[in-house]
Amino acid sequence: MKPYSERTTEELLQEKQELEAKFEDARGKGLKLDMSRGKPSTEQLKISRGILDAIDSTSDLNCASGQDCCNYGLMDGIPEAKQLFADLLEVSPENVIVYGNSSLNIMYDTISRAYTHGILGNTPWCRLDSVKFLCPVPGYDRHFSVTEHFGVEMIHIPMDENGPDMDLVEQYVNRDPAVKGIWCVPKYSNPTGITYSDEVVRRMASLKPAAADFRIYWDNAYAFHHLYDEVQDEIPEILSECAKAGNPDMVYEFCSTSKISFPGGGLAALVSSETNLKEVRAQMTIQTIGHDKLNQLRHVRYFKNAQGVREHMKKHADFMRPKFETVLQVLEKELGGLEIGSWVRPRGGYFISFDALPGCAKAIVAKSKEAGLVLTGAGATYPYGKDPQDSNIRIAPTYPTPEELALAGEIFVLSVKLVSLEKILAERA
Amino acid sequence: MKPYSERTTEELLQEKQELEAKFEDARGKGLKLDMSRGKPSTEQLKISRGILDAIDSTSDLNCASGQDCCNYGLMDGIPEAKQLFADLLEVSPENVIVYGNSSLNIMYDTISRAYTHGILGNTPWCRLDSVKFLCPVPGYDRHFSVTEHFGVEMIHIPMDENGPDMDLVEQYVNRDPAVKGIWCVPKYSNPTGITYSDEVVRRMASLKPAAADFRIYWDNAYAFHHLYDEVQDEIPEILSECAKAGNPDMVYEFCSTSKISFPGGGLAALVSSETNLKEVRAQMTIQTIGHDKLNQLRHVRYFKNAQGVREHMKKHADFMRPKFETVLQVLEKELGGLEIGSWVRPRGGYFISFDALPGCAKAIVAKSKEAGLVLTGAGATYPYGKDPQDSNIRIAPTYPTPEELALAGEIFVLSVKLVSLEKILAERA
Repeated sequence: MKPYSERTTEELLQEKQELEAKFEDARGKGLKLDMSRGKPSTEQLKISRGILDAIDSTSDLNCASGQDCCNYGLMDGIPEAKQLFADLLEVSPENVIVYGNSSLNIMYDTISRAYTHGILGNTPWCRLDSVKFLCPVPGYDRHFSVTEHFGVEMIHIPMDENGPDMDLVEQYVNRDPAVKGIWCVPKYSNPTGITYSDEVVRRMASLKPAAADFRIYWDNAYAFHHLYDEVQDEIPEILSECAKAGNPDMVYEFCSTSKISFPGGGLAALVSSETNLKEVRAQMTIQTIGHDKLNQLRHVRYFKNAQGVREHMKKHADFMRPKFETVLQVLEKELGGLEIGSWVRPRGGYFISFDALPGCAKAIVAKSKEAGLVLTGAGATYPYGKDPQDSNIRIAPTYPTPEELALAGEIFVLSVKLVSLEKILAERA
Repeated sequence: MKPYSERTTEELLQEKQELEAKFEDARGKGLKLDMSRGKPSTEQLKISRGILDAIDSTSDLNCASGQDCCNYGLMDGIPEAKQLFADLLEVSPENVIVYGNSSLNIMYDTISRAYTHGILGNTPWCRLDSVKFLCPVPGYDRHFSVTEHFGVEMIHIPMDENGPDMDLVEQYVNRDPAVKGIWCVPKYSNPTGITYSDEVVRRMASLKPAAADFRIYWDNAYAFHHLYDEVQDEIPEILSECAKAGNPDMVYEFCSTSKISFPGGGLAALVSSETNLKEVRAQMTIQTIGHDKLNQLRHVRYFKNAQGVREHMKKHADFMRPKFETVLQVLEKELGGLEIGSWVRPRGGYFISFDALPGCAKAIVAKSKEAGLVLTGAGATYPYGKDPQDSNIRIAPTYPTPEELALAGEIFVLSVKLVSLEKILAERA
């Protein structure tokens, strides 16, 4: 298709008229769809229901160490759950604490602990005038919300297809002692879907931070969330890379089964050096008697081992792959060549990241909403909810049914076209 | 029996010799028992196993509002779980947030939030020079650990059979703006087993705090944990008492099913005014996508309603009552009249509180340990682990088997007698 920018004003006005008619049509279909969050679909979640049968009232409810999972004890997780996460993430069980149901909660608590008590004897952040975090953008809104909540100054780091701009990261981290952390989603990144290159991971592990309490907040949220069997992204294991580079304590890794078993009903884990975990455990002793060991047992009995998880993930992929492809086809078919937006084709994760013409994202999201399609708020993928280009939109294709998704795709591309046209026309006026 | 203090030194030396022989006998039996924490016994927990069958892979997993408990959503709890806690605690569901598995974790997070962000617009505690808490003593060690962790200065408030000394509480709370809270276990208190009188509850609700962010931290941990059918302690509902007294936002109430369903595998709830909960929800939005709704569903489907919980608690009592009575009988039989210790006969809860002669508690705990009986560390029932009288010992009789308990009781009274004798003899020397 001929790019909009190369069409005459008359052609554009003609196109606009046609699009408006189509948009009215689409709006008339009365869609009411929330695509704002990355959620598995209702049908998809049924594949995990067997977990609920893995233990019942007649089961042996002792864990591998012989302790009764019905009673107090084992604050940092049952041995077999630690082992499962260790195998999945290629670390040792000594590097794992199994928590409750939410890795976001672990991240929040990790930041909160640094704020109130400091990391390994360093000054608590609440006593510092300035605490800064590097935020590869576009990124995950809930990461940014946590650091914003604690008054942390967030610095944009541009991302490309290999990950964050490491020149810039090194410049900040190695020079400024106020830089205390970087948020990373290294695999099938939220929202861009890209996976960090080996070189990026190794440069990350080899940072020479000016701050002793600088940490990489490594949210490995989509570690096993491949869409394809044939092409699976892998990244070097970060703990050992950090250790090799002389930075054994420089990373906190987060992981959960929210998008493996049940969102909100799964397990979450913190992975880090034994030194870091010793400090975490000391504080956990104050905070809790431990997490739900019965749910840990239920998960391990069902999945059996890491391979069991990987097999299970293929079933998820079977639900998700066609949805991603539906959206990508609509984008390609309807927007290809128009030069009013770009997107990446992810091989895993939960999102498609769409970059509209600068200044158009908010208007596109608003336009879609007029026709009943709720997208993630424009700007959400940037710290403070402010996308300086007003360009990035996160598309979460997994929750809708195929029928809803077809209509949602139509509404989305119509919104992109209309808003872009208006921008181009306004610039010509 | 004749009080030790009235016996001759010769009689005491004779008694000491006999006790030492008996102690050696008891030690020879090789007991290895940890009675340090209030835990249900393994057998007792089997009564809750039906909960595990309440949902399975074939169940309708939508909650009362029609949402799928397998997916994200409902951050503050499913409607039927809120209703269950509301009915149990005689409040409205709008006053309830259902959390994960641990009320201690809610308490920690509540204190942490006050420390980092302040309560309802008041200065965050981390920015204050002095934050004080009133601590009725003896009390719950984990409460004191939380406030100690955040650098809060803890002030002892003596307890009698009606609860904390309210004259002293009023004096501190109504005059000193640095006093930000009081820890309370109002029913079957940990460890004394006493229940606050109606007058104490009403005076508590009628405080006129000097600090706008003063709150009562009302840990209703044993609300339904009666030992007897015939005599059940009840207390006025604290939220409505506070509201009546013009203090609608003055209380955070905590509750869990840890000792109803499964320790570590149950549900916990925060109960407070809508104004307080609105603030809590705003922060929760940053911290988590919500707690385990499947476990909430499992619990509500099993218990059905508040009456179901109350019936279930009778089964727990059937296990616990004989254990309490065994210990109380040993104390009465072996120590009655000797004037070397006092204790209360609780009607509920998990503990028997024993007051030894001043200066003897640590030695008694150490002596018991020599014979394989681990008790809660002496001092643990006081802030900073320091009992100024070195007198209070918390006995947790629920976990051991009846056989272990008989031997443990023997070791305990022998230890009390020996240590007390030595003290009296030393004073005469």
